[in-house]
Amino acid sequence: MMQTKIAIDAMGGDVGPSVTVPAALTFLAQSPDCRVLLVGRTGDIKAALSDARSVARDVLSRLEIIEAPELVGMDEDIRSAIRNKKRSSMRVAIDLVKSGDSHACVSAGNTGALMGTAKFVLKTLPGIDRPAICGVLPSRKGVVYVLDLGANAESTSEHLLQFAIMGAMLCSAVEGKPSPTVGLLNIGSEEIKGNEITKSAGELLKSSHLNFYGNVEGTDIYKGTTDVVVCDGFVGNVMLKASEGIAKMMGDFLKEEYTKSPIRKLMALASLPALNGFRARVDHRQYNGAALLGLRGIVVKSHGSADTFSFGRAILRAQSEAEHGLLGKISAEIERLHREGLLVPSASSDESESSSKLAAE
Amino acid sequence: MMQTKIAIDAMGGDVGPSVTVPAALTFLAQSPDCRVLLVGRTGDIKAALSDARSVARDVLSRLEIIEAPELVGMDEDIRSAIRNKKRSSMRVAIDLVKSGDSHACVSAGNTGALMGTAKFVLKTLPGIDRPAICGVLPSRKGVVYVLDLGANAESTSEHLLQFAIMGAMLCSAVEGKPSPTVGLLNIGSEEIKGNEITKSAGELLKSSHLNFYGNVEGTDIYKGTTDVVVCDGFVGNVMLKASEGIAKMMGDFLKEEYTKSPIRKLMALASLPALNGFRARVDHRQYNGAALLGLRGIVVKSHGSADTFSFGRAILRAQSEAEHGLLGKISAEIERLHREGLLVPSASSDESESSSKLAAE
Repeated sequence: MMQTKIAIDAMGGDVGPSVTVPAALTFLAQSPDCRVLLVGRTGDIKAALSDARSVARDVLSRLEIIEAPELVGMDEDIRSAIRNKKRSSMRVAIDLVKSGDSHACVSAGNTGALMGTAKFVLKTLPGIDRPAICGVLPSRKGVVYVLDLGANAESTSEHLLQFAIMGAMLCSAVEGKPSPTVGLLNIGSEEIKGNEITKSAGELLKSSHLNFYGNVEGTDIYKGTTDVVVCDGFVGNVMLKASEGIAKMMGDFLKEEYTKSPIRKLMALASLPALNGFRARVDHRQYNGAALLGLRGIVVKSHGSADTFSFGRAILRAQSEAEHGLLGKISAEIERLHREGLLVPSASSDESESSSKLAAE
Repeated sequence: MMQTKIAIDAMGGDVGPSVTVPAALTFLAQSPDCRVLLVGRTGDIKAALSDARSVARDVLSRLEIIEAPELVGMDEDIRSAIRNKKRSSMRVAIDLVKSGDSHACVSAGNTGALMGTAKFVLKTLPGIDRPAICGVLPSRKGVVYVLDLGANAESTSEHLLQFAIMGAMLCSAVEGKPSPTVGLLNIGSEEIKGNEITKSAGELLKSSHLNFYGNVEGTDIYKGTTDVVVCDGFVGNVMLKASEGIAKMMGDFLKEEYTKSPIRKLMALASLPALNGFRARVDHRQYNGAALLGLRGIVVKSHGSADTFSFGRAILRAQSEAEHGLLGKISAEIERLHREGLLVPSASSDESESSSKLAAE
């Protein structure tokens, strides 16, 4: 049986090995067909390994440490990361995907550097101008795939079409939906049905091969109106963070109300099954792990502040994408669309040169 | 003592008089110094009045019905509303503000038509290119004023500066804060600190007279990092509706968890003080009522689906703005800034002609 190999940037995130290493150990214990390549400073990784209480020999046998002495800072410039940090844990983890030594990589490092390095090392798929970050959010109907969550601060309508195609393919591959519905995030005011870019993106989506539902509003994301929601990275990033913010505030309010008096605390104890059920359903940690789509390799971005549970979810997402053959499926489909002229290249793309170079490879 | 007079578009919203009329009666009972002008079809308003159980004579004496036979549909085109519905409840309510017969008006009607009609009838303040919709949202520190929530789908950096000035003045007038902090809603990725418009808006805000905090992210809104958050209307609208969506979903999840079994239902009953406390704190209805800022008159927009309680909150907001002398304060300040060249007009504004005409009045 083929073993799925995941490269983990052990140094990434706010705390590094003390989160990534235990998460990797738990993952290996639960996934007997997987191997993990822990990338980073060997000393730091070994220290985190020795902190782990007891590790089964079988788990250790599927774990490999790959030395990478450099670190990419959480606010390091993309160019500096690409040019000067060729031996960083992030870069080496991505290199392992490029070389085929691992099927996917996961990093909780700086988003910009991760995206920039992944694009530089792995390159984009033919016909894709820019990669996008696709997250999975909870909805009344299960989950919803939303992109772009912040890889691009400005997008053309052609980019939005490309994002929609990639998001639909990710959803289709992982959720097993043959033709997921796609919504275009827009504003509801009857006065103005969106800005110029969303208007023309709507036209492109309508005439695409996708199962295009039409415009959706912010409320539709969590209603689960469509399987996929596409938007530009600025809007997606603000939407995601505002959602996290209000969810956190509501959780805090609930806690405060239940700890206001001894009697209320008692009631909270008595209500634990309901409160825990609620907490589990709204726990954003379980949705950690966003796909960097449009690259010639699987890269999953974890939240920088992820804890062990949360980082583990990002590893599982990488595993799922690898085992569902996402890369093969997405590459074949993108190439087909590209050949048949169904992928509209962006005239104003700043990447047109590099992507035509790629297409010619 | 001066009576505050509020014109209410009685026909606006998803249900019209059956919500607006009882809300007006409750408002009058609680605000003995106020009068209400109920604008709409006299027959429909009288029917709703007769449905009210018992109305104090004093309340009735401060209520006036202003006949307006036409209706603006919830999805009616702005131009059609302005040109063809001169006797609509929405238009007549705004006309009453223009003529000075009322200090403010409230409508739950179609946002686009309300904004378009208000701008057409009342005109914008000198130096203001476009009005903006400013909402008040809950935050960890109290409330936060956020604009634009959807009046404009596209904004220049100069518009964002104007929005920031207006939002700060509204917050200052109503909350009594002499120099509220202003944040520019942006994305957090270190790769891209926003798009071109936010970058240049940041420069304008930095060199303005405002108490500019700097960039804020989506999470900062609900943290209450700043008193005012400024963004373009597309981003603001999506952010607001996504927040409503996730808050609704979380509320539903909590309810579902507490009704899963008879024992859990019992625990919910026992926990009512905590659960009710929570519900009250996250009840979005209490934040209903957004200010249409930048006009020569006070106009408050209610959610179209508002219930009686919620519509009542929008009336209270209009009263508060009127009684805090918002219009006088905002007009004086905008005129001062305009005179001193501190309001930067937008070169690409499609309203430059009309606003210079206004300034010359």
